[in-house]
This record gives sequence, C-alpha cells and structure tokens, in this order.
Amino acid sequence: MQWNAEAGKIMARVRKVRPLVHHITNVVVANVTANVTLAVGASPVMAHAPEEAAEMARAAKAVVLNIGTLTLGQMEAMMAAGREANRAGVPVILDPVGMGATSFRSRSVERLLSDIKVAVVRGNAAEIAVLGGYSARVAGVDAASEPEGMPGIVRETSRRLGTVVAATGAIDYVSDGTLVLEVHNGHPLLTRITGTGCMATAVIAAMRAVEEDGLPAATAALACFGYAGEIAAAGARGPGSFQVRLLDVLHALQPEELAQGARIAAG
Amino acid sequence: MQWNAEAGKIMARVRKVRPLVHHITNVVVANVTANVTLAVGASPVMAHAPEEAAEMARAAKAVVLNIGTLTLGQMEAMMAAGREANRAGVPVILDPVGMGATSFRSRSVERLLSDIKVAVVRGNAAEIAVLGGYSARVAGVDAASEPEGMPGIVRETSRRLGTVVAATGAIDYVSDGTLVLEVHNGHPLLTRITGTGCMATAVIAAMRAVEEDGLPAATAALACFGYAGEIAAAGARGPGSFQVRLLDVLHALQPEELAQGARIAAG
Amino acid sequence: MQWNAEAGKIMARVRKVRPLVHHITNVVVANVTANVTLAVGASPVMAHAPEEAAEMARAAKAVVLNIGTLTLGQMEAMMAAGREANRAGVPVILDPVGMGATSFRSRSVERLLSDIKVAVVRGNAAEIAVLGGYSARVAGVDAASEPEGMPGIVRETSRRLGTVVAATGAIDYVSDGTLVLEVHNGHPLLTRITGTGCMATAVIAAMRAVEEDGLPAATAALACFGYAGEIAAAGARGPGSFQVRLLDVLHALQPEELAQGARIAAG
Repeated sequence: MQWNAEAGKIMARVRKVRPLVHHITNVVVANVTANVTLAVGASPVMAHAPEEAAEMARAAKAVVLNIGTLTLGQMEAMMAAGREANRAGVPVILDPVGMGATSFRSRSVERLLSDIKVAVVRGNAAEIAVLGGYSARVAGVDAASEPEGMPGIVRETSRRLGTVVAATGAIDYVSDGTLVLEVHNGHPLLTRITGTGCMATAVIAAMRAVEEDGLPAATAALACFGYAGEIAAAGARGPGSFQVRLLDVLHALQPEELAQGARIAAG
Repeated sequence: MQWNAEAGKIMARVRKVRPLVHHITNVVVANVTANVTLAVGASPVMAHAPEEAAEMARAAKAVVLNIGTLTLGQMEAMMAAGREANRAGVPVILDPVGMGATSFRSRSVERLLSDIKVAVVRGNAAEIAVLGGYSARVAGVDAASEPEGMPGIVRETSRRLGTVVAATGAIDYVSDGTLVLEVHNGHPLLTRITGTGCMATAVIAAMRAVEEDGLPAATAALACFGYAGEIAAAGARGPGSFQVRLLDVLHALQPEELAQGARIAAG
Repeated sequence: MQWNAEAGKIMARVRKVRPLVHHITNVVVANVTANVTLAVGASPVMAHAPEEAAEMARAAKAVVLNIGTLTLGQMEAMMAAGREANRAGVPVILDPVGMGATSFRSRSVERLLSDIKVAVVRGNAAEIAVLGGYSARVAGVDAASEPEGMPGIVRETSRRLGTVVAATGAIDYVSDGTLVLEVHNGHPLLTRITGTGCMATAVIAAMRAVEEDGLPAATAALACFGYAGEIAAAGARGPGSFQVRLLDVLHALQPEELAQGARIAAG
C-alpha cells in the first residue's frame, strides 16, 4: 500500500506543478504523446532540430528521447538535448523503440547510453532484454515474444546501465537494480493501438519530472497509465473508441483514485 | 452584428470554393490540422520538401507556415514557398509556435518576416507579445501567462509588422493596426488538447483564402473555431471525446449558425 | 461470389499470420495508418532513416512506400528499402500521393518505378491517370475530378507498369493488366477525413503480405476498407466520430462478414 499512496502523491504533484516535458520523439506518436502528457497534467513541447534541442531541454523539467523513427538529424538533436539536460540536472527518459530490430537502432541506443546519463529507460520486454544483453527476438515495434525471467532481466539490466529500467507487458516490471516492482494494471486493448508504450514513457517523464526517485516515479506512471487503460476499456467498442476514452479517463483520473486502483507488488 | 454576418458569409464562401490550403507544418498537428481544414470546408495539402514547396504554394489559395517542429530543411521549404506565394499573390499565414522559447525559433521567425510578406500572423498572447518586442515568458508551446494590455499589444504588433495579427486566448484579439476586434467564443477544453492554436491558424488560412481582407477573415475563423469548441465541449467527457466532437461540429456547422453564434466585439 | 469468398479467406490469413508491414510514409497519416494496420490484423513498423530502411524492409512481409510528404532523405530510404525488398522477395506497395501535383513527386515516382519492382500501386483516379500518361488534373492530394473511362485507364496503366494497379474513388478499380475488378463498397465520409487513401494502401499491404496474387489481395483490401467505412458511417455524427468508428469496425470485422458484405464485380 505504501507504493500506492506514493503513486497518488506523485500524480498529485504533476497536477500541481504542471512540469514542462520536452519530447524528441517519433512522427507516429507525436500527437498522441503530447495529448497524453497534457491529460496527465503536464505540459508538452516537441522540438527536434539540433539548433534548438539543447535550449529546449534546459528549459524543461524532463526530456524524452524516443527513437521510434530515428534519423541522423534527430540523433544529433538527442545528443545535444541529453548532454544539456545532464548539465542542467534535468532527467532524461529513454524509449529505445525497436531496439534490436535494426543495427542502426541498437548502435544509436548504445551511443545515447554511453554519452548521456539516463534517469529511466522504458521499453517492452523484448527491447529491454536486448538492451541488457539477453537474447530476444524484436520484430518491428510490437511487443513480440516476452522472454522468461523478466524480473531478473530488468534488475540486471538496471544494474548494468546504472539507471531505473521499466519493462512493460502484461505485467510491468520496474527496477532500480535492487528492488523489482510489478505493476499489474493494464488491459489487452493497450496492445491494439499504436504508441501505447510511447505514451507510457511520456507519463513516466511527467512523473519523474516531479519525483527524483525513478523507481516510485516510473511505477506510479505505469500504474496510472495501466489503470486508465482498464477504465477506458470498459465501454470501449474497439481500438478507436478506446483511444478516445483513454485520454478522457487520464484527464479525469484523480490521484486518490490512482492510490486506490493501482496494483503494485514487490517482485 | 456586421462582423457576425460577415463571418457567416466568409464561411459560406469557403464551403463553396473549397480552397486548396498548402501547409508546411509541424509533425504533432499535421493530421489534425488537415482534418480541421477539411471539416471547415477547404482542401488541405501538406508538402515540406524544398524541392516542391514553391510549386505547391503557387497552386494553393493560401499557405500556412507553422514552425512548431521547425528544422533547417523545413525553413528552406518555408522560404521557397513564402517567396513564391508572394510572387503569385497567394496569402501566407504564419504561426510562430514557441516564438521566444528558443533563439532558433525567434531568429527563424524574424527571417521569415523580413523576407516574406505575411497576410496574417496567429499566435497565443505570449508569442504575439514577444513578436511585438514586448516582454513575455514563453515556456514550451502552451499559452503561458497572458501579458496585460493585449489589445494594445496586438494593434502595435500589427502596425510594426504591417500585417494582420491575431492573438488567441480566453479572449482572442485581431487587429489590422487600426481596429482591434475581440472574439469571445471558445472553451477551456481547447487548452487541454494539443494543437488547437495550430488548428485555429488552419481555419484562418481557409477563410483568408476566400477573403482578401485579413481582419474579417481571421475574426470569422476564430469565431468559427471557438464556437465549434463551445458546442463540442457540451457533451464531451474529456479531451479525447472533445477532439472527436470538435471535428464533427466543425463539419456540421452552418454559416448561418456561425452568424448567430459568433461573439465578436470591437475592442 | 468467388471474389467475395477469396476476400474473406485473405482477410482470415492476415488475422492468423499477423504479417509485419514496414511503412515509409508521410507525417500526416503515420499514426492512423499504423492503427489501421493493427486493426486489420497486421503489425506495423515505421522506419524512414536510410541507415535502417533496408534492414527493416528485409524483416517485413510487405513494404509501403507512400510519398505524401516526401523529402530527399526519405527518397533515399525508399530506394534502399525497395531494392532490398526486391532482393528478399518482399512485396512493395506504392502510394503515389499527389502524383502530378508537383514535378518533384512525378519525377520521384518515375524513379521509384524504374528502379524497384512494385507489386501494387494504389492511388486516386487522377493520380493513377497521370501515372498512366493520361491527362488529369491533380490539385493537392484530394480526389479531384475523376477522368472518364477509368476501367480502361487502370488496365492500360497496369499493363504499362507491369504491376497491379488500384484506383480508388466512388467505385474502386483494380487491374492486373488483363482483368478489371470493381469494388462498390465505400461511403462519402471516407473523403471527409484525411488519409483514407493511405489507409486503404496500408490494408492492401497487409493483404498482399499473405497473398501472392495482387489482384485478389488489393480487391479484398479495398472491399474490406470500404465495407468498414459503410458500417462506420452508420451512426457517425461527422468525420471525427467516423474516424473513431472506422478503427472500431475494422478491428471487429470478421472475414465471413467481409465475404458477405463485399461488393466486387468483374468490370
């Protein structure tokens, strides 16, 4: 129950502070992640030109680097934004979309992680496994097969990278290298619209912007997003109406409801 | 009432002429501004390659330059499109998203305004104030704090730039440097989804495409968009369903309803 | 009835196989075409960096090249993806959005068609006519005027290009150079939201990924998408709710319903 109460408190802080979250993200989800950022109570800004990425990152309370449709120009912007965020003490949240699907993505993620101190990494199970050096098949950007033993994989990957790691799936796992927390919120319809992983990352950024400790911040975010998914699914007639309801529900959700509805367990 | 009747007439003309509006815009709102352009009765085309921007601009009845996720390549396309639009007598509508948030954006807007004759500039209050040389804080792309004395700021900025200026907010102000018109339509939910400012700019472009005088055209557009927002908000359960209803309402709205529902006042 | 039954079978195969479809597409429709790909039962991945386009194409079961907001960088990625897809036997589906609207688009399409073996081309009537060397007016990306004699134009264009050609409109025409099939499914609301042509192309790619013969694959796709449009339109209050319902309906549609509802006729 401690984690639930904490989740509610972090969410309340987002609503009060309305932190500015700078996204360098992919073209598929730019609109929906901006709307999710707004719905959860934060303020989104998108800017991916190398000429302004650092300046925007410095002004923000969190920076999202999402490689979903990465280009070399965007990579340059991410490096500039990430370094400046590190200098300014702004947390960087990395979403390694499709990690392992192409060598370009894998190399780019490695380069980002070697040059930039990342506060939280969020990926699906296969992406996180590949990131941690485990074997997993990543085809496209869907949650493909989920490797066995995710709790251990997430903890080990967190240790190796020295950052909080969150792997989302039917059960989400979040670890700081010591503890592993499980989030049991969510709904299968979340896999039927594009970009829900990216949306979860956006919520993590909003929460991490107001909470220094990445473990409760990421856990609160995944519980919040998953719980909103559950409520949105009730009454949805399919992925279209689910997506609409997801924004409605995220916007209406109150911190005390999250503290009630979150299903967080120590792994 | 004169402005209301005028608004209805301009909207009717958009529906009849179905003007082609060429957008060079940001990746966050590309889809929704295309849909808003369609819903209001015009025909959108998006094209941002420097290799074709001028040719597309020449074929259009209005050109939107929106710097929301500006890159150097897009800047080149905007310059080409803007110059060609000027040569061909096609009105250019500028949306200086995030003006003042980074020096890259500010410099780019200055360059666009110095090389291209712009018919209408639309921004939120802070962006317009910065554009006019007033002090205002622009953080991200949200409507931040609204400076005092907006009517005067809008009129003066219009005079300095020699273009019609529209500043949107709880009250919208539109000026041609002499008159200042206020539009009292709108709803707070318009601030809870991303890109509503950009959508308003798209509607201005559609109206300006069929009406030479930018003052009534921009005023009609903001009344139309704000009034649609009011109707859409009634019955919306949050930002998701609001956005869906906004397109439905814009599409169904009739010019005579706009003439009734517009709340335009001389400042 | 043979074509109807075939359509149902192909759709059932998509649902079973869940083929990975690699899209290099425009920023306006990236989100909605990914969601349509998911709703029909396939798995989308978007990747447009020249550094990874070939590798992603090789891993996919179909590749979509959509020039809606083409840039030179994207063109490079399309060439790399297309050539690699050809080597690997992965079918390439081309959507020549705005073909004829600018010389950049026309030249780019010609270059793609001369270097890459394309399995299916899908455009609106005017785009296909221009592609086939007929005179037609293309303004923007809307379905403009539909030239006379489309069945013959589609068959001849198919012959000249040596690929299956699909022209969508009030009636869709699909030809392999010998047969011309007509699809009478659809609804006018499909012309009131942006990107429905691109969505139809995405469905063709999903179907062609599991069916070697492009004629029944493209026909099944257009019947499926058009029939979903009909169902979605019933009860929609405008383009916003129509778009939401379109995803819901596509996701819920069963292969046997398609076999019943498809209206396919030999031309």
